[in-house]
Parts: sequence; structure tokens; C-alpha cells
Amino acid sequence: MKAVVPFKTVNAKSRLSTILTADERAKLARLMLDDIVGALREAGLQVVLLTTTPFQYDAEVIVSEKDLNAALNDFLGSEPEPVMIIMADIPLITVKNIRDMLASPADVVISPGRGGGTNVQYIKEPQKYHVDYYGASFLDHMRITEDNGLSAEVFDSFNVSSDIDEAQDLVELYIHGKGKAAEYLRSILALDVSKGRVKVARDVQKVTEGHRPGRPVATQ
Amino acid sequence: MKAVVPFKTVNAKSRLSTILTADERAKLARLMLDDIVGALREAGLQVVLLTTTPFQYDAEVIVSEKDLNAALNDFLGSEPEPVMIIMADIPLITVKNIRDMLASPADVVISPGRGGGTNVQYIKEPQKYHVDYYGASFLDHMRITEDNGLSAEVFDSFNVSSDIDEAQDLVELYIHGKGKAAEYLRSILALDVSKGRVKVARDVQKVTEGHRPGRPVATQ
Repeated sequence: MKAVVPFKTVNAKSRLSTILTADERAKLARLMLDDIVGALREAGLQVVLLTTTPFQYDAEVIVSEKDLNAALNDFLGSEPEPVMIIMADIPLITVKNIRDMLASPADVVISPGRGGGTNVQYIKEPQKYHVDYYGASFLDHMRITEDNGLSAEVFDSFNVSSDIDEAQDLVELYIHGKGKAAEYLRSILALDVSKGRVKVARDVQKVTEGHRPGRPVATQ
Repeated sequence: MKAVVPFKTVNAKSRLSTILTADERAKLARLMLDDIVGALREAGLQVVLLTTTPFQYDAEVIVSEKDLNAALNDFLGSEPEPVMIIMADIPLITVKNIRDMLASPADVVISPGRGGGTNVQYIKEPQKYHVDYYGASFLDHMRITEDNGLSAEVFDSFNVSSDIDEAQDLVELYIHGKGKAAEYLRSILALDVSKGRVKVARDVQKVTEGHRPGRPVATQ
């Protein structure tokens, strides 16, 4: 079964430019992709990257100049097997998250992103479905399942919902991440807990005792 | 078993003042509390409100002038039974979420909030534990479990992680909410999908076709 991962190769993660250089953004985007691809493969999925420009990667790469929706809908229309569509900026996703979605009895599993987005969709019969990203895509996708008479499961996961788009989102990766992207982030930024909402920052002097960069977060 | 809900009765949800009036904030805060208390009771828990000023509510109310951590730690220190501590601003939480946490074999279940926060803790032996909210409290709580030789489970839920603090957070409640707080929010604001990240707004003219306020979101 295939997992399609749209990946922007040019000026990736531009909204992180408030805190990361172009090189850092490119490296972080690549490491997030690696983390996600690793999890998908461990869950037994065959990874397909969807890009707008040719890109060297150890996976099948489909290059399409169409917009994201058109490119994905082309893919779905020609795919007889179930498909998972997964965004490349959700590095907290775990193998268990993927397996749990694969185990759903619903026709379509929709895992919301923040702010009305859609971070993962698992579609049993791709030829009966189409995607509509951008805007409040979660609502659009729920409506598309309904219009097509398909059952939907909303997959409730903090990990999957945490897409890394803006500087504030990096806090989730910094604090909760266990993969290479998180390791890299912790090597270049620090956690700023000095006031209000926790942020990431360049200034390591702001780092509070016990929140050192790279300090592993204990888990169960 | 008791569930303790800290609830701010004076100037609640002040960071929502960029979009809601004081009356609207008070009403929304109260409806979020009602939704959460309803879910806790349906899951079989006995609700205790922790406030700084006397408050009329159909539940046991503990009034303490201490800060949140001191007041909660007083409570934990005198409680022989397991305790759930649950924030009053996570209206997406479901009865299933609560039951799933109660079913955990871990000594402490920690459900992260955004930005390093902690939205729910379920503590089997409260006298062996203490809380430390504010800042990156998730990291602090993980460390406290470790220091006390307790096992921890990180509960992975989008619903539980979605605390409603700032205007942008209202989008989650607007789109995903199923309770009275969401119903109220949809009656006073609209969804703005005109550009960039989806927002809530007063100006209903911005509302895109099909994202009308109050439109029920289909679920499985």
C-alpha cells in the first residue's frame, strides 16, 4: 500500500524564516521528511514523494507541475489500492499512529491539523474520493466523504495534528520530538521559558535550568 | 474518584479580549467548564472546582487564595485516591478521552497542551506526586514522575491538547467542537478562510460558502 508525501523542494518552510536561515529550513524540512518516511516504512507502507521539481531521494518520486489538489487527485484516480496521504511537516507522528489509522474500519480516516487543516488521510477506495487542501480543508474533507456516501473517522492525535509551519510550532517539535529533526532543532535553538507562552530562541542564555537544548525528554 | 478543575472566575480568558468582550469571554469560559464537567461526570468522576474566589456551581467548590501549584499540591497531599487534574479550557475533550486515560496502567498520565503545557494529569497516588504548572510544564511533570520513580504515559490527543487561550485557538473549537461552548461560539463569530491560516472573525461576509456559522460538522 502506498503513502503519498507531498514535499516542497524549493524554499521549503518559508514561514519559518523568522527564526531559521534558508539552509536551516531546508535541512529541517529534509530531516522531518526522513523521520516521517522512516515511520511509514516501519509500518509497512511504500513511500511515494510528490514534488514539483525533480528531487533525489530513496523512494519513488512523482514530479508534477500541477497544484497540490490536482496532482493528488490524479494520483487517487489511478490508484486501485488504499492510499495514505501524509504531510511532510508532522515529524511527531509515530509508527503506532500510522498503524492505528490503518486499523480503522472507516472508509476514510481524517487526521486534523491545527487551524482547520488536514494532516493525514487514509483512503480505502481512492477512486471514490478526492481531496481539497487549503483553507479549512478538514471541513471540506468531511463534506466530501459525506457527499460520496463514505464513512469517516476523525483520528484524534496531538502528534499528527502538530504541523510545523511557523516559529511557534517549533516548540512542539523541540519538546516532544524523538527523531532526527528534533535532535537537529535542539542543536541549533534553545527553549525560552522566560515569560508567557514557551518559545524557541537563538539566545541560549534565556534557557531555564533543566530545559537545556538536547536534554532528552523522559518517556514511559 | 475526584477530578479537580481549576477555574478562574475573575477576568477569565483575558487573552481572548482581542476578539471577545468581557461578557462573551465569561460566557464562553462557563460553557467550556460545563462541557468538561459534563464529560467528567459521564465518565463517572466526582467534580471538584478549585477557585480563588467563591463561585456558585453545582459541584464541590474549593476556594483557595494560594497560587495554582500550591493549591493543587495541598489537594494532592491530602487525597488518598487517584486524582485527575483537568484544565477548564479544553472543551474538545470527550468521554472516550477521559475513559482512555483512566484505563492507563501508568502511575501518571500526562496529556500535553500546546506550547509545552499540561492539560490533563491522571495521578494514581497523589501523595507521591506534585505539580508544577506554568512554563514548559510538560517537561517539568515528566521530570517529576522520573524523580519520584513513577511510570508516565504521554496521552496523545488532539482534543485534549487544544486549550483555548488565544483568538487563534478558537478556530479549533469552532471547527471541531460538539458541545455548548462551540455552539455559542458559532452563534457569535464566523470562520474566515479568506487567506492564510483560518481565523475566526466578526465579519460574516468573509465566510466562505459552505463554512456557515453553526453548520454541523459531520462525524463518523
